Amino acid sequence: MPRQDLEYPKEAHNTVKRYNHLATIPMIGQMGSFDRPSADLGDVLDLYIHGYISARLTNLTRTPSGLPITVSASTVDGLLLSLTPFSHGYNFRSAVLFGHATVVTDPAEKLYAMELITNKVVPNRWNEARTPPTAGEMAATAVMKVKIDTGSAKVRTGPPKDDKGDLENEEVREKVWVGTVPVYTVLGEPKVAEYNLAEEVPKTLVEWRKEVNQDAKEYAELAAVKNLAPEKKKQDDN
Amino acid sequence: MPRQDLEYPKEAHNTVKRYNHLATIPMIGQMGSFDRPSADLGDVLDLYIHGYISARLTNLTRTPSGLPITVSASTVDGLLLSLTPFSHGYNFRSAVLFGHATVVTDPAEKLYAMELITNKVVPNRWNEARTPPTAGEMAATAVMKVKIDTGSAKVRTGPPKDDKGDLENEEVREKVWVGTVPVYTVLGEPKVAEYNLAEEVPKTLVEWRKEVNQDAKEYAELAAVKNLAPEKKKQDDN
Repeated sequence: MPRQDLEYPKEAHNTVKRYNHLATIPMIGQMGSFDRPSADLGDVLDLYIHGYISARLTNLTRTPSGLPITVSASTVDGLLLSLTPFSHGYNFRSAVLFGHATVVTDPAEKLYAMELITNKVVPNRWNEARTPPTAGEMAATAVMKVKIDTGSAKVRTGPPKDDKGDLENEEVREKVWVGTVPVYTVLGEPKVAEYNLAEEVPKTLVEWRKEVNQDAKEYAELAAVKNLAPEKKKQDDN
Repeated sequence: MPRQDLEYPKEAHNTVKRYNHLATIPMIGQMGSFDRPSADLGDVLDLYIHGYISARLTNLTRTPSGLPITVSASTVDGLLLSLTPFSHGYNFRSAVLFGHATVVTDPAEKLYAMELITNKVVPNRWNEARTPPTAGEMAATAVMKVKIDTGSAKVRTGPPKDDKGDLENEEVREKVWVGTVPVYTVLGEPKVAEYNLAEEVPKTLVEWRKEVNQDAKEYAELAAVKNLAPEKKKQDDN
């Protein structure tokens, strides 16, 4: 519907070649285990993802081990303003997962994944919305399951850091303000749709919004001033 | 420094293979043109990116045309809560660029790119911080330049949308609240670093923060209720 597609302007000097545009598509995902639903993030989980899954992408997953896939996510938690631009940076959290994707065909697992993903967007939404799905919805909705082979995450917290040379320069330190600008995401005041007939915004949504907003602000503000990483033997220099 | 690296838990059934971890690294980037500094986003620009550029990555760019590279960025502007989970979605903006990357070696161009990237993080920060860079900083900092071959962007705005079947079901419509939760990023109150000696937070930062926060909130709230995309001949169905 109201989606806008923009194309990068082209000029003669651009070497246009064939790329696999399927390779980078934003999708919604959630970690879970259909076989062991009570498993948590300390266990080995699968990643269920939902998005526009084309016939071509589906075909690519039809190999014995599935389609090799990389999934990444990152979020910025603060801007680090140091004495010199070369020590500027971000507080952030980022994760990369490498695995093999297949399309979920078992109806029970597909239903499990849909509920998992929906309730990740807004808690309890699956039960509050019109469910169960119709046969048509089940057929029209594709879910991919990624078996994770390996992955890693990075978290940067704490105030900016400067080199000795600048720290010892009083003139520079009196001139340049140093600190962190916390960055966080806010869920705004819900805006009702024109075709809504329900009396009020669900309580779950109201409470969850308040809680999520408070947690996000607190985390970014704490990360701005304090190193939240556990002690490590070896530390990187930035 | 206070960076935390986490590894995904491994179990016997995980098929661990070799992956190119270099392939997905969060970096800061900014579009610009060194040859035509007054060029704007309607023109063909290069993408300058900064981040941890390893010796291996540098070597990979040493081909006549550079290293083929994909750069993507996306942001969520709202949660779309419709009558059924199968019509739920996000308001979002996302972009993918495909190009060829080389490491910038010309000192003047490198300086141009560093200033461009720094002032993108916080306006005027290059001049307010301790510059120019020392020879050591210039040597230790790598900037990659991506010549863009092609790219595309998608923007989704407006309220949620439901199918006829649900819209005609009064019982469902009276039970399920429908609307949009605007989502936006906030730059919080700057937190001064312990080693700061400067008197006050720079005026540019104070004003820019206010402006950016107001714009972000306004955009998400407007996108929540209004289709901001220009008219198109053919429209996607979601």
